[in-house]
Amino acid sequence: MKVGIKIMPRDVILDTQGRAVENSMKANGFELQSCRVGKFLELSLVTADQIKAQADVEKMLKQGGLYNPLIEKFEIQFM
Amino acid sequence: MKVGIKIMPRDVILDTQGRAVENSMKANGFELQSCRVGKFLELSLVTADQIKAQADVEKMLKQGGLYNPLIEKFEIQFM
Repeated sequence: MKVGIKIMPRDVILDTQGRAVENSMKANGFELQSCRVGKFLELSLVTADQIKAQADVEKMLKQGGLYNPLIEKFEIQFM
Repeated sequence: MKVGIKIMPRDVILDTQGRAVENSMKANGFELQSCRVGKFLELSLVTADQIKAQADVEKMLKQGGLYNPLIEKFEIQFM
């Protein structure tokens, strides 16, 4: 089954990449209030069980080091 | 309003970053078939109109250079 993982910088963290996009868009005349940039991972898992998939993905994130809990937060999306 | 933009490498493009994550996860004993890594942008727009937001975001992507159509595809998510 396919699982999406959205990894974004935590709200309290200054996101320099997002700030750069925001300033660039504003300089080009687009109207926006803010922008934050994160990562998106699409995993194809062997299992078809959603509960097992959720547990596996959380383990990958936490033990496999796919995200940094100090500065990032994640969200799992089933696709 | 908040809009999410998922930017992923096109399916035909070799995603070296995704391949690296895939191999690393496999080496750590996780079961997965494949992994692709992309970007996720969260924009806060001034407008509250969904149709205008969609048009604005597409313009930012195409004219503002937020994505490379040769190697990437995008998906707009309203949050």
